[in-house]
Amino acid sequence: MDNLSEPMNDVAHLGHVELLTPRPDESLRFFTDVLGMAVTDRVGQSVFLRGYGDYERHTLKLTESRQAGVAHVAWRTTSEPALARRAAALETAGFGLGWIDGDSGHGRAYRFVDPDGHVMEVYYATERYQAPADQRSRLKNQPQRYSGVGIGVRRIDHVNLLCREVTANRVFMEEKLGFRLREHVILDDATEAAAWISVTPLAHDVAYTLDATRSRGRLHHVAYWVDNREDVLRAADIFLENDVVIESGPSKHAITQAFFLYGFEPGGNRVEIFSSGYLILAPDWEPIVWTQAERARGQAWGLRLPPSFHSYGTPVVEVPASELLHVPVVDPR
Amino acid sequence: MDNLSEPMNDVAHLGHVELLTPRPDESLRFFTDVLGMAVTDRVGQSVFLRGYGDYERHTLKLTESRQAGVAHVAWRTTSEPALARRAAALETAGFGLGWIDGDSGHGRAYRFVDPDGHVMEVYYATERYQAPADQRSRLKNQPQRYSGVGIGVRRIDHVNLLCREVTANRVFMEEKLGFRLREHVILDDATEAAAWISVTPLAHDVAYTLDATRSRGRLHHVAYWVDNREDVLRAADIFLENDVVIESGPSKHAITQAFFLYGFEPGGNRVEIFSSGYLILAPDWEPIVWTQAERARGQAWGLRLPPSFHSYGTPVVEVPASELLHVPVVDPR
Amino acid sequence: MDNLSEPMNDVAHLGHVELLTPRPDESLRFFTDVLGMAVTDRVGQSVFLRGYGDYERHTLKLTESRQAGVAHVAWRTTSEPALARRAAALETAGFGLGWIDGDSGHGRAYRFVDPDGHVMEVYYATERYQAPADQRSRLKNQPQRYSGVGIGVRRIDHVNLLCREVTANRVFMEEKLGFRLREHVILDDATEAAAWISVTPLAHDVAYTLDATRSRGRLHHVAYWVDNREDVLRAADIFLENDVVIESGPSKHAITQAFFLYGFEPGGNRVEIFSSGYLILAPDWEPIVWTQAERARGQAWGLRLPPSFHSYGTPVVEVPASELLHVPVVDPR
Amino acid sequence: MDNLSEPMNDVAHLGHVELLTPRPDESLRFFTDVLGMAVTDRVGQSVFLRGYGDYERHTLKLTESRQAGVAHVAWRTTSEPALARRAAALETAGFGLGWIDGDSGHGRAYRFVDPDGHVMEVYYATERYQAPADQRSRLKNQPQRYSGVGIGVRRIDHVNLLCREVTANRVFMEEKLGFRLREHVILDDATEAAAWISVTPLAHDVAYTLDATRSRGRLHHVAYWVDNREDVLRAADIFLENDVVIESGPSKHAITQAFFLYGFEPGGNRVEIFSSGYLILAPDWEPIVWTQAERARGQAWGLRLPPSFHSYGTPVVEVPASELLHVPVVDPR
Repeated sequence: MDNLSEPMNDVAHLGHVELLTPRPDESLRFFTDVLGMAVTDRVGQSVFLRGYGDYERHTLKLTESRQAGVAHVAWRTTSEPALARRAAALETAGFGLGWIDGDSGHGRAYRFVDPDGHVMEVYYATERYQAPADQRSRLKNQPQRYSGVGIGVRRIDHVNLLCREVTANRVFMEEKLGFRLREHVILDDATEAAAWISVTPLAHDVAYTLDATRSRGRLHHVAYWVDNREDVLRAADIFLENDVVIESGPSKHAITQAFFLYGFEPGGNRVEIFSSGYLILAPDWEPIVWTQAERARGQAWGLRLPPSFHSYGTPVVEVPASELLHVPVVDPR
Repeated sequence: MDNLSEPMNDVAHLGHVELLTPRPDESLRFFTDVLGMAVTDRVGQSVFLRGYGDYERHTLKLTESRQAGVAHVAWRTTSEPALARRAAALETAGFGLGWIDGDSGHGRAYRFVDPDGHVMEVYYATERYQAPADQRSRLKNQPQRYSGVGIGVRRIDHVNLLCREVTANRVFMEEKLGFRLREHVILDDATEAAAWISVTPLAHDVAYTLDATRSRGRLHHVAYWVDNREDVLRAADIFLENDVVIESGPSKHAITQAFFLYGFEPGGNRVEIFSSGYLILAPDWEPIVWTQAERARGQAWGLRLPPSFHSYGTPVVEVPASELLHVPVVDPR
Repeated sequence: MDNLSEPMNDVAHLGHVELLTPRPDESLRFFTDVLGMAVTDRVGQSVFLRGYGDYERHTLKLTESRQAGVAHVAWRTTSEPALARRAAALETAGFGLGWIDGDSGHGRAYRFVDPDGHVMEVYYATERYQAPADQRSRLKNQPQRYSGVGIGVRRIDHVNLLCREVTANRVFMEEKLGFRLREHVILDDATEAAAWISVTPLAHDVAYTLDATRSRGRLHHVAYWVDNREDVLRAADIFLENDVVIESGPSKHAITQAFFLYGFEPGGNRVEIFSSGYLILAPDWEPIVWTQAERARGQAWGLRLPPSFHSYGTPVVEVPASELLHVPVVDPR
Repeated sequence: MDNLSEPMNDVAHLGHVELLTPRPDESLRFFTDVLGMAVTDRVGQSVFLRGYGDYERHTLKLTESRQAGVAHVAWRTTSEPALARRAAALETAGFGLGWIDGDSGHGRAYRFVDPDGHVMEVYYATERYQAPADQRSRLKNQPQRYSGVGIGVRRIDHVNLLCREVTANRVFMEEKLGFRLREHVILDDATEAAAWISVTPLAHDVAYTLDATRSRGRLHHVAYWVDNREDVLRAADIFLENDVVIESGPSKHAITQAFFLYGFEPGGNRVEIFSSGYLILAPDWEPIVWTQAERARGQAWGLRLPPSFHSYGTPVVEVPASELLHVPVVDPR
């Protein structure tokens, strides 16, 4: 089938992420009071949340669990036929887990794993967020009013996944789901240490980074978008006043030119507040290759990320520093 | 007495403003939920409020009244002797109303009127804000934590008063209280149409503007400071989402170079969200004179303020447009 | 041919715009010194320019002419087959002008007119900008160094065209080129007064607005992007200091949520400095419909655009105000 | 003489700083092309420069020298009598170097040394900057047009001096010149490791910090103000693109809440691009005391300054790391 091998334009965008937390109440307060997100549903041990600009009913599913981590990453397709094509391709390739009936807010979804073992799904049918009267924005093109509470994140932006082998996962996402490589880091020994890929003009919808602990299926971070760099600076003050541990930032990444702030939600997952960056509208974009020497220069303005940035992920894996994979000066975002 | 005629350095800064409102509950919600101010006391029909950066216990006293307007404007002196000197000078000049024992948050104060009839007071003894544990900032040099609620104003900045005659009031403030003229508007007929004066390096702690209704003792607006122009832009969205009527802005004034946003609190008083501007550190500043022709060019970027800006004040006075004083192209801020 | 009627994904983005100017030297100085653009070529009476983030060699062709206006608007396709498909479809529909060999910086292009008569072209082969050593950015993913001169626009964003009939042009762009309707204004009499359409996730790559002078083929404005709202505020000061007439802004549009500043380049063409807005990643976006009453509320924060915004375009057409088409409260951007 | 011991209000503000550079041409290009300052005079081996908002003719004197460093720091007094009082007090205290006739841009000045040996001067008579026609701002209250070149610093802000003993210098500045202590760091062994002092409402006009090399008379940095934090972020990109070594930032200091960026001009002197912070209007400000433990937490958002920040100054002194004074976790700004 020709169209199985031409995945381009079948996946529309990152839909939602399911985060696991061993401290569900505190995690929830973090996302509502500090990030300013709204709760849209509660089912079992899960709470569903959204940024004020997300057009779908939710983009974050927060689920109580023994350990932190990412339970699944969901991609919305461009149509029902596109969904069928992707499901068939994934099934054929042997990565399929099968169909689920759907979940709060969206219809049937085809579940699969990436080569590293992260659970993902593709779906098309979705519930558009319909704001109740007191949540309606005065701006007709905005799904929900801007509440002015906390950081006030606008929409989900991307997810960064740790993995044992970047190339295998990156190529899988390209071939099976139509992602395009935007930027990547190639070490002196030719190892691909990190890759930023997208189906949208964003410089990444997902990034894959080497996991220094050699684990599988771990999360590096999930990122929410704010409109302005000033919002990221303001977010740092809000993190500070709310005793959220700031790992790094605000500062500017060289790769993707993102203006970033990294902190940890109470469950242990790393969260990024993100703005700026650049759009890729070229249909024939040539991936940016960063060498080991170039990465050694730090972030755009010379900032060095702390060691935790290169080894910490969720679920937390305790590995003696001496046994960590040595990835020369790679900033895995 | 020599020191009565040398008022320089006796007045330190604007202390607080007492606003009157016929809709006390809605006004209070405006200042707490929209501006993000904190309540520090309630006495009788008054509620006391503060911005997170105000070092005194409060800077706004909100008092229920039949009509909107300003009940009094308070200036903190640099010392007790300075207070005594100013009281004596005001008494001698015949503007004194006498001493009061003080009010919630500050000690004895000498009350007086300016030539236009606005009630003012000078005081020195004050209560420094001591944040309760849950309001303590992680920044030791900040009196209170930044809450992240609403606009999040930092501190009181200035007050703008309408009057029948600018020069009389401006000279009174210079001679009796040590204010210095920073900028003013002189019309073609030599009328001084507005004056921006200060005892601090701010371009104005108070401004006097001609009242087009020929009333006395009215308020044009009270202004609260935010740290960044982006905060003013964000404030406009918060005004919008909370159905606060925006009169003008965000934009940049030519005079004082302030970045402004004007709206109305539910009681009817005009409130400005304010940032930027410039500091005057020169001890021998030469006042900037704006001519009628120069004012006709509008604000810094050409914006025209609406007619209401030139005639509306509190308490509201109904005057037929035909009877309004015609002040050629003056933007009274 | 099935694929002629399925234009989706054949057009990638706005490529470049050719502006006409009767004052070429002053216009050039405006684009280089005020906007901070770089010259990449000169051919005959034309100069080619670029923003520091444009990946193609140029995005603006500035051509000396008797009158201001837009000579052509160019769209890059996603591939050579896509170009062939679009050319065939346009030819078939009777809008074709034929192939040209190309121009400085790009290969062969198929020229056509939209229903209103604006000349456009589609092309695929393009010359990627290769920065000379002294223009190379320290950021590897940036085509050219940020010079810090003037406003420093990053990339072309969109073009706004005046027309006699919005619907005809909008539907033409949808059907022949794959544009999708994002937002539009529908008057009480059912007239479509303006439409914002795009092939990218930007809220518009081109907008069509009713021409109050009932002329054909005129330009409302061309817009260049800057990364931050602060850059737009800074641009206003740069316009001010360089005697560029500011027509309106900086402020926020309700439609597209763009943060805008409009001024006129010396040749008379309106230019927008633009930032912010929102991205449309939904594959099944439902167009936002603005009613006459909603438009009457002004821009996002209540600002009213001046009358010139509703009738001025280039080439300039002198029409008595009494003969202007009355478009009730429409802000044509 | 009573008024010699009451220095309060005799010193108005920091006037100018004379920097020494062994690479005068490159240093000059840095201040003009990167910082966007204007040259106002050249005398002998010195060039005089200004920010667009400086009201005096210049605030920086750049002088060719064998070594980098600060040649003198100048303070403007509030009047001629105030100058006479300060000169007499300094003379009496044995710190005087005597009168000089003046220099380009200002009248007679009394030269003295602080206890650490930094040469300073007080002066009153000054030349206000009169912009030539092509440098006149469209904003009447702005001394010079905003050029839009490079970073575009507005005005001198403060200077930071290294010293062998903080307390002696801080008390000297308080007692002889009327500075007030705003914030300081007191180590566990009671050593005062750094002090921020001012005569203006700025949190510091000058800071004194322990010199880890135990040298005398060295400069830590000179700081120029920009209006917005966004300007500091933009400055970082301009530093990057111009190969200016960024030592740290942009980020936010806990002390003074300054938003900072540190880099080195080609002569070797550290330069800060600075915005934000807070104003001290309280006449009875209680100095903020930072403990060793509090300083160990890093800057406001947790950033650690690099080791160079704690030992590098100009003139450069080569001291083996093992012989450096160990100042526990002090960030000397």
